[in-house]
Amino acid sequence: MEKIILGIDPGTTVLGYGLLKVSGKSLELLTLGVVNLSKFDDHYLKLQKIYSRLDSIIKEFCPDEMALEAPFFGKNVQSMLKLGRAQGVAMAVGLNHEIPISEYAPRKVKMAITGSGSASKEQVATMISKLLKIDEMPDFFDATDALAVALCHYYESQNPFAGVGKGGNSWKSFIEKNPNRVRK
Amino acid sequence: MEKIILGIDPGTTVLGYGLLKVSGKSLELLTLGVVNLSKFDDHYLKLQKIYSRLDSIIKEFCPDEMALEAPFFGKNVQSMLKLGRAQGVAMAVGLNHEIPISEYAPRKVKMAITGSGSASKEQVATMISKLLKIDEMPDFFDATDALAVALCHYYESQNPFAGVGKGGNSWKSFIEKNPNRVRK
Repeated sequence: MEKIILGIDPGTTVLGYGLLKVSGKSLELLTLGVVNLSKFDDHYLKLQKIYSRLDSIIKEFCPDEMALEAPFFGKNVQSMLKLGRAQGVAMAVGLNHEIPISEYAPRKVKMAITGSGSASKEQVATMISKLLKIDEMPDFFDATDALAVALCHYYESQNPFAGVGKGGNSWKSFIEKNPNRVRK
Repeated sequence: MEKIILGIDPGTTVLGYGLLKVSGKSLELLTLGVVNLSKFDDHYLKLQKIYSRLDSIIKEFCPDEMALEAPFFGKNVQSMLKLGRAQGVAMAVGLNHEIPISEYAPRKVKMAITGSGSASKEQVATMISKLLKIDEMPDFFDATDALAVALCHYYESQNPFAGVGKGGNSWKSFIEKNPNRVRK
């Protein structure tokens, strides 16, 4: 089975995105990048930019699924309202293209990629580069974060833990099923 | 000059909308209604419903401008995130159709319609019914609130206070310019 997953880390200053192609057990990086919103003073212009960039990315790559990194807590109501709007606009693009959306808390994404929910952005980026064979590290961690959520979604949809605990040696079967998740 | 204004009161339980046609100084109610979201448990389904209903409303009535009632404060970060998402989805529909968006705080809308920033929803609905000659009061105040924000936007774009203070009798000129804003 082949599918394309669009991962998004929607911020109000920088929005990261990454596209992952899954063919059976093989993973291929299609593209990754950021939408730098800091240059726009106007709130609507930022939202407009999020909409138009994601819309053109979806039209170009036709992803089958969309995964968002979505923090549920924030410093204050003001920042959460702005974040909610950015998330809402990103979701709307997906809804408009009838793409199923999943969301994952940052801790869950870090856990899925590095094995630690408190991993740093650098650690996540390093693991992502290794797993997807990215030679050059991107300028913004938002792009690797976006790929991380796409990868996290892939792991979730594979439901790797379904087999754990059933066999006599669950970790062994888990590692066999997920060779690329073993940290060397 | 003729234009159509779409007013929206985007909530996470009920979304209200109202369409106002402005021809010179005359105002005409085109339609008003609500999207009842309480029946949907799923958060995405709510956002999907907001998207699809607003999209079809915009396609049917082709509004020139969009005005949102947007509270900037809320009880907690959770509810603000959800509200932000609902607002973001509503805005995205407007952005997708390249309709300029304006937003107004609830207090500002109440002030514009009733003359008091602390007016009740009933007072707003009563004034709206009078101004737009609505015989039957709608079941939800969200619909009249949406019309109120559309009307508030119209008043703002008319910039009634531009003339105030210039003439010798500013209130008189204001009332002359805005006969329908005088409470009888």
